[in-house]
Amino acid sequence: MDMHQLIRELREESKTKIVLLVADGLGGLPLEPGGKTELESAHTPNLDALAREGTCGLSIPVLPGITPGSGPGHLGLFGYDPLKYRIGRGILEALGINFAVGARDVAARGNFCTLEGSGAISDRRAGRPTTERCVAMCQKLQQVKVPGVEVFVEPVREHRFVVVFRGDGLGDAVNDTDPQAVGVKPLAAKGADPASQKTADAVNRWLAEATKVLKGDAPTNGVTLRGFARYPKIETMQEVYGLKSAAIAVYPMYRGLARLVGMDVADAGSTLGDQVKTLERLWKDYDFFFLHYKYTDSTGEDGNFPAKVDTIQRFDAVIPQVRALNPDVLIVTGDHSTPSKLKSHSWHPVPVVLWAKTCRPDPVTEFGESQCLRGGLGQFPAMYLLPLAMAHAQRLAKYGA
Amino acid sequence: MDMHQLIRELREESKTKIVLLVADGLGGLPLEPGGKTELESAHTPNLDALAREGTCGLSIPVLPGITPGSGPGHLGLFGYDPLKYRIGRGILEALGINFAVGARDVAARGNFCTLEGSGAISDRRAGRPTTERCVAMCQKLQQVKVPGVEVFVEPVREHRFVVVFRGDGLGDAVNDTDPQAVGVKPLAAKGADPASQKTADAVNRWLAEATKVLKGDAPTNGVTLRGFARYPKIETMQEVYGLKSAAIAVYPMYRGLARLVGMDVADAGSTLGDQVKTLERLWKDYDFFFLHYKYTDSTGEDGNFPAKVDTIQRFDAVIPQVRALNPDVLIVTGDHSTPSKLKSHSWHPVPVVLWAKTCRPDPVTEFGESQCLRGGLGQFPAMYLLPLAMAHAQRLAKYGA
Repeated sequence: MDMHQLIRELREESKTKIVLLVADGLGGLPLEPGGKTELESAHTPNLDALAREGTCGLSIPVLPGITPGSGPGHLGLFGYDPLKYRIGRGILEALGINFAVGARDVAARGNFCTLEGSGAISDRRAGRPTTERCVAMCQKLQQVKVPGVEVFVEPVREHRFVVVFRGDGLGDAVNDTDPQAVGVKPLAAKGADPASQKTADAVNRWLAEATKVLKGDAPTNGVTLRGFARYPKIETMQEVYGLKSAAIAVYPMYRGLARLVGMDVADAGSTLGDQVKTLERLWKDYDFFFLHYKYTDSTGEDGNFPAKVDTIQRFDAVIPQVRALNPDVLIVTGDHSTPSKLKSHSWHPVPVVLWAKTCRPDPVTEFGESQCLRGGLGQFPAMYLLPLAMAHAQRLAKYGA
Repeated sequence: MDMHQLIRELREESKTKIVLLVADGLGGLPLEPGGKTELESAHTPNLDALAREGTCGLSIPVLPGITPGSGPGHLGLFGYDPLKYRIGRGILEALGINFAVGARDVAARGNFCTLEGSGAISDRRAGRPTTERCVAMCQKLQQVKVPGVEVFVEPVREHRFVVVFRGDGLGDAVNDTDPQAVGVKPLAAKGADPASQKTADAVNRWLAEATKVLKGDAPTNGVTLRGFARYPKIETMQEVYGLKSAAIAVYPMYRGLARLVGMDVADAGSTLGDQVKTLERLWKDYDFFFLHYKYTDSTGEDGNFPAKVDTIQRFDAVIPQVRALNPDVLIVTGDHSTPSKLKSHSWHPVPVVLWAKTCRPDPVTEFGESQCLRGGLGQFPAMYLLPLAMAHAQRLAKYGA
């Protein structure tokens, strides 16, 4: 039995409201044996109160030991199996620059590279050009036309850009043209099926023209493409969960991920304060609110333990404003762990607190990794968090008589 | 999404080393209400130190309530779903006597039985003959020839032996000839498909001849066969996990199980001290080391609680030598529980400690069943232990962008 099919059968109309606050990369590690994690080190009186009143646990984003990217991390929190719904790199890169990908699009991540006279790659990242140069080169590439498809070339930064091929019947089973090595030529694109061969033909034509256009622009005189991907067909949260959902996120990638599951993406301003005001403004119009806070992840990626602690404290400070709206279910968690110690996403389970009037109490008194280990939700796959929220919001009927 | 497919996508090269120490049947039960288990009763300062520094948990070998044999128990620890990869009894018996089973072989477990004049079985175990007699009877049976196949008959002990039929295109969907009852004749072999019928024909011919050869040897004047099985096609640990793996096991069955997943099987000597020396000798040549210690299981099977405690203490004593090698990930666990109180394998979850520098701490201070219940790994299917080890050894890339 597919979980979504079950939810469709059981879901019920209700006026209850669910808030999901995602502190990106929330979970952490102590720096020293016997030490505390970032979350445990932070002074978080408001999160601690939620933990005392609600139920805590640890979520496993994908599977034990598997470190998720932002895509699978968020899909799990939105109630989608991240192993079933996969978002290709091209699509995620396009979402990340706020490109409005559509159903007829195949997106790919592009790299500028340096080609020798022989056509072989001498530098896979073209000496890491400035973003200004990346923008200028992308403008040049926008001149390249291919019959039968529209092509969009958008800069990301340094050597990175996005290409979108738009047309009818384009498949995405196309190999990377990046050979992942120097001293060899970029690979030709090949399609694994007729629709993907149509894409590959367009890609090869475009690559041939692009190489001509960039001929005099060494070190950015070549390009490689990888992660060809179509916009995935994903049933919306409204369709599956019956939730009219709003996303309140500042960064394009998270806005794009929310749009992918059918959320309305709000104009959220640029600060956490703006985001909370947006939540207040939208309160009466939606059932489900996803608010994304980026800085717990970016400080973790930087390896800056005290800065991560500080961002957690600033996040804690807005909890009373959210509670003042009187949500029926309030969840605070992350999409994955980003321990400052590792300076990267990790596989460690993620602290979760779920607050509702229907919570069964547990012994957790402070919101942190060690205490969440004793929480009432136990350790559970992240994709079950939204069904749990639905239950606590009285939005799921009994299964079977 | 298949876990092995996911691991193949994500695995990365690394020089890190993973050690898996398996104390067979490690988990136990207290003898009296309020008492301690064997592991909790043992004085294990080195395991306790690992538990304090690492992360603990309890592994579920197959499913809750399911007691595993040695085959499924080890396959889980090697990162294979024991419900997907099944090893037939004939193969396991052959591995257990160190018979080198190959791709053209069908193996079966044989029992000597006593036949009456009518041909009906009067004793399914032939009065439990001595192993010497078993050896002599097997030598007699080795004379029996069947056209088109080679047949090998190897003693196990008492009434037990192994038969291997070697030939081209032999299937293993053949019923047991053991009727599991007295007063009836052994059953004829039948194949469920043409390849298996080819095997069944050879089996029936062999059984007819064997009965003639043993005619005057009552009470060991008959045989029954069961558990016909081919050598399973299993992708190797190198293929799936990218780990060059060595097995350091004394007993043939565990050496055979390791060979089944492509491990190199070392000449390991006969004592735990020999095994640790073997580990030291092989250290620079492999990524993954499986060291198997039998006596925690055999003392449990004997129902000898104090002897099991003693074997655990002897196992604890070698931990410092293993740690001195400076592994990146060190795991100590069992393939299942063997409580002395039950004198058999059991379904109870198995204590696990995983030590690595990237561990998230948990409150466990002593390695034992009760404390592992509060461990950071929670209760988890055993097949996720190797992915967890890979993660802690920095051998898995991020899933999704």
